Amino acid sequence: MRKTLDERNQMTDLERLRHSCAHVLATAILRIWPNAQLAGGPPVDNGFYYDIDLDHAITPADFEQIEKEMKKVVKENQTFERVTVTRDEAKALAKSGRLGALSERDVESTFKLDMIDDIPEDEEISLFQNGEFIDLCAGPHVGRTGNCKAFKVMSVAAAYYKGDQNNQSVQRIYGTCFKNRTLLDDYLEKLEEAKKRDHRKLGREMNLFAIDEAVGQGLILWKPKGGIIRRELQDFIGSALDKQGYFQVFTPHIGKLDLYRTSGHFPYYQDSQYPPVIERDNIKRLADEGCTCAELHNHLESGDIEGFLLKPMNCPHHIKIFDSEPRSYRDLPVRLAEFGTVYRWEQSGELGGMTRVRGFTQDDAHIFCTSDQVAEEIQGCLGLVKTVLATLGMNDYRVRLSLRDPDSDKYVGDPANWDKAEAALREAVESLDVDYTEELGEAAFYGPKIDFVVSDVIGREWQLGTVQVDYNLPERFDISYIGSDNNKHRPVMIHRAPFGSLERFTGLLIEHFAGHFPTWLAPEQVRILPISDKVMDFAQQTEATLKEAGVRVVLDKSPDKVGAKIRLAQLDKVPYMLVVGEREAEANQVSVRHSRKGDLGTQAVDEFISSIQTEISERSL
Amino acid sequence: MRKTLDERNQMTDLERLRHSCAHVLATAILRIWPNAQLAGGPPVDNGFYYDIDLDHAITPADFEQIEKEMKKVVKENQTFERVTVTRDEAKALAKSGRLGALSERDVESTFKLDMIDDIPEDEEISLFQNGEFIDLCAGPHVGRTGNCKAFKVMSVAAAYYKGDQNNQSVQRIYGTCFKNRTLLDDYLEKLEEAKKRDHRKLGREMNLFAIDEAVGQGLILWKPKGGIIRRELQDFIGSALDKQGYFQVFTPHIGKLDLYRTSGHFPYYQDSQYPPVIERDNIKRLADEGCTCAELHNHLESGDIEGFLLKPMNCPHHIKIFDSEPRSYRDLPVRLAEFGTVYRWEQSGELGGMTRVRGFTQDDAHIFCTSDQVAEEIQGCLGLVKTVLATLGMNDYRVRLSLRDPDSDKYVGDPANWDKAEAALREAVESLDVDYTEELGEAAFYGPKIDFVVSDVIGREWQLGTVQVDYNLPERFDISYIGSDNNKHRPVMIHRAPFGSLERFTGLLIEHFAGHFPTWLAPEQVRILPISDKVMDFAQQTEATLKEAGVRVVLDKSPDKVGAKIRLAQLDKVPYMLVVGEREAEANQVSVRHSRKGDLGTQAVDEFISSIQTEISERSL
Repeated sequence: MRKTLDERNQMTDLERLRHSCAHVLATAILRIWPNAQLAGGPPVDNGFYYDIDLDHAITPADFEQIEKEMKKVVKENQTFERVTVTRDEAKALAKSGRLGALSERDVESTFKLDMIDDIPEDEEISLFQNGEFIDLCAGPHVGRTGNCKAFKVMSVAAAYYKGDQNNQSVQRIYGTCFKNRTLLDDYLEKLEEAKKRDHRKLGREMNLFAIDEAVGQGLILWKPKGGIIRRELQDFIGSALDKQGYFQVFTPHIGKLDLYRTSGHFPYYQDSQYPPVIERDNIKRLADEGCTCAELHNHLESGDIEGFLLKPMNCPHHIKIFDSEPRSYRDLPVRLAEFGTVYRWEQSGELGGMTRVRGFTQDDAHIFCTSDQVAEEIQGCLGLVKTVLATLGMNDYRVRLSLRDPDSDKYVGDPANWDKAEAALREAVESLDVDYTEELGEAAFYGPKIDFVVSDVIGREWQLGTVQVDYNLPERFDISYIGSDNNKHRPVMIHRAPFGSLERFTGLLIEHFAGHFPTWLAPEQVRILPISDKVMDFAQQTEATLKEAGVRVVLDKSPDKVGAKIRLAQLDKVPYMLVVGEREAEANQVSVRHSRKGDLGTQAVDEFISSIQTEISERSL
Repeated sequence: MRKTLDERNQMTDLERLRHSCAHVLATAILRIWPNAQLAGGPPVDNGFYYDIDLDHAITPADFEQIEKEMKKVVKENQTFERVTVTRDEAKALAKSGRLGALSERDVESTFKLDMIDDIPEDEEISLFQNGEFIDLCAGPHVGRTGNCKAFKVMSVAAAYYKGDQNNQSVQRIYGTCFKNRTLLDDYLEKLEEAKKRDHRKLGREMNLFAIDEAVGQGLILWKPKGGIIRRELQDFIGSALDKQGYFQVFTPHIGKLDLYRTSGHFPYYQDSQYPPVIERDNIKRLADEGCTCAELHNHLESGDIEGFLLKPMNCPHHIKIFDSEPRSYRDLPVRLAEFGTVYRWEQSGELGGMTRVRGFTQDDAHIFCTSDQVAEEIQGCLGLVKTVLATLGMNDYRVRLSLRDPDSDKYVGDPANWDKAEAALREAVESLDVDYTEELGEAAFYGPKIDFVVSDVIGREWQLGTVQVDYNLPERFDISYIGSDNNKHRPVMIHRAPFGSLERFTGLLIEHFAGHFPTWLAPEQVRILPISDKVMDFAQQTEATLKEAGVRVVLDKSPDKVGAKIRLAQLDKVPYMLVVGEREAEANQVSVRHSRKGDLGTQAVDEFISSIQTEISERSL
């Protein structure tokens, strides 16, 4: 996308530097492959790219040569010079192959020619030149190529010209650039660290989850070891919910379309939903009536045909549970929780690992309360988040408080209630003692909300879940309770899914811990490593004792040497390794090794069990 | 449906008696309403009915009069006489209104006239006469109306003539009849008991679950109290599975159609499935191609269009998990368990409560093993069932062992493996020490199986789940493991869902316990009943102590007298009531009352807690 003038004026110094480095990259490439056709080369998050068309398929093997040439260009310390030209002059240059090139060429600068047409009639056309390289470019740039000292060519990928898949395919070469070597090294180190921690990689290596195209893109298969983590998380969050007076419910994964017409989720949000299931009888009836598929398509889009929807959220089902019995003010607040799996139609290009999926299980709950109870309930929600994040060692998080735009009238509900709810949210957030920002106009039309943003150990931010106050759905579903005045009243609803989804949260945890889960979460908590077959009886007996004590233990029966066994356990990220030799067997002891703390000395089996049980039950880090 | 000659010859004595009683009912009805038009009156499970068309809408208020008239007919002890007639004679009688009547009438016997046409040309037409009543009837009957001594008119319902909803609506009057009064009384008593225990009634009264038409027929909303029961069952079964080396996995509720084409579930079983979800792009493409809805319907039926299916079973997903990493013989057996919710399209007329549903959560597992391991794995499955049923006090169950028909060649897999698997199943069943029947030819085409049939406390049988050995799916999905010979081998699969589904099993439990769940399953385990506000502090403190101890407790704060509070707790089927007065408060004691055992005397709070904790953790009955 071409940036607007406004956007270009707002370019940061770093973006400007990176944009210039893209020109250095282009210069180097043209020195190696003079006939390369250049398209666009903007700065992006963490670096820049340049799109080129070239017969030679660039691979990482070429990066060294390219960087070497770039270094020369930097060393030459060429100035970036801006020239303005008329549209005709620009076109003439492009036609002579001189734009995006070091000299005139036998072929036109095809992309540049097209890009000139994209420049608005009233906008000035500028070129930038460094050394022999002239490019069509709006800038801005740094002064000289010498400024681009700390750079690196990162990767190459296929892309479409202007990002449109109807256009020609080009090679997109990514690079990055920083003000100095230290900053670049820091970045590369973090990147290396992030790669090691990538939950897709660790999830595969540690057998935590799988995605199978035959099942469907973006649909997570939680494998046995991932299943253990999920159960532990559900038990942990579930017991915290129990303590706070929530009740877990279970609801089906589909609902009639009409339910979502009432809630407003259909057809309004249908692009982010799986299409509806249409009853056989309905399709047959339409077929018998001679309806065309195009008409059916229209019926589906407009939502005027009956069917079922894979539930995109759990709220309507919970509302139906609330509404399934008469409610009095004495029953409020009613807190319904569910690990509810919902389905949403993300574009296939956006899917990846556990964090961008088409099916996910929310740690969802809906609180039905009086407007006087909103403040206390929000406090409860935040308290829960605080406990859970602290247990997981995530103490670095911030909160976004989204309020209504006071000048807009797009919001539903009584302004007095809004004031109350916003004040309640603000008060709750303030009591948390964390950084927060107030964002006016960012509230949903049905109520204000809080979002959580957690920083992991390498400083990356993860958007988690949300707490929302809702005046809308209780109205749409016409739910009520009988107040102390014996009249019907409308409850307020609070939606809360503070960790967003178990899939996303588990993805975050994998990266946060780099796979080294705290013992209570570790799929395998202990591995027993007998030194020889002579102690196998004792090893098996110890395995049985640990199992009996509720510890997840595996006995390594392989004939390998103990050193190899330790290395394997270490690779498998098992927190505790119990090395067992004849001396240990005789004394009913084990030699304890921790995956990160190293050798912990010899302990009696009972002693080890009691200490690991405490560690597990206390969910120690 | 008209019964075949063969079926009529196989009528039991009881069915014959009930069929005759249907004629007694018809006679009585015609004495009261001579113009009633009679259709059919066959014996059915537990009784008989007669379909009639009549201006007067019969209600239970009419039953006494009808029974009084029936008694007269019985007392008259009329003989049942069989007369054969020609088709023309039968038609003449029907036209004169004389069939299904006490005399000739002004109108034709419309239904009978139609029923004559249904009699095959080569079949003899017979009439049965008792007293004045002549009916078109193939019999057989008992000798005299006097045999029908113990009868009762049970209910009336709307039905369609011949069960076809395109036909006229008729009134179906149900009755029952037994050989003697004692048997009838037994039956009525059991029926009364079954009504009291009806899980639909108790489920509503006890707020366990709800079904909401706006969500969808046959889709269960587990309310908070039902959710507690489900969690307890899942924890119980889950911990038993953990002990047996199963791993819980979690898989999505949809899968690509192709997955089910591979498994063979689609399009073969599609009538019992929700229709597929067709991707928007596909429908749009078909629409753009000018495809008609009829063609789309055909595409759907034949399954040659891509889409997603709500999963009708979990096996393909588990196979994909098995197949997501290389497997060696050392890894086997791999036992993957899931409380997996599946969706099936039951006809709406067949839906009811938790036992006939469209979405249910199986206590599912798939074991991937070598054929040598089948026997031991089956034993493990049966052991689990035995433990679970014993814990729930269901010691009365039988097993059906379904084997292949030795004369048929419809079965897949090696006959030697079949022999082995059948022998393994038989051996496992024999080790159980329960009644079992072998049923030749009842095996699925892909392997033999075991079904469980449990009798509840009032003697009704409930079909539970199944254990099946499968040689087919491993073949279809081409899964393998590397054997000790370093070659690829095909694993055998065992499907097991011994309790069928949590919905059905919970329905059974509700009826089995008549809502009086054992303490560990009871949604509310303890209710504290303070005698007056003076002891409210102590009551609240006791409530907090119990909560802290993990007991599900509710404090009745209402201003009602303690007698009323006890009655309410009793109605709510709370196992323990703790009555608290000033004497108890002073002594830190509670007066314990059990919902079925009555007064248990005074206990120290600590003492009560420790005893209820033991009861809960041991899952005592």
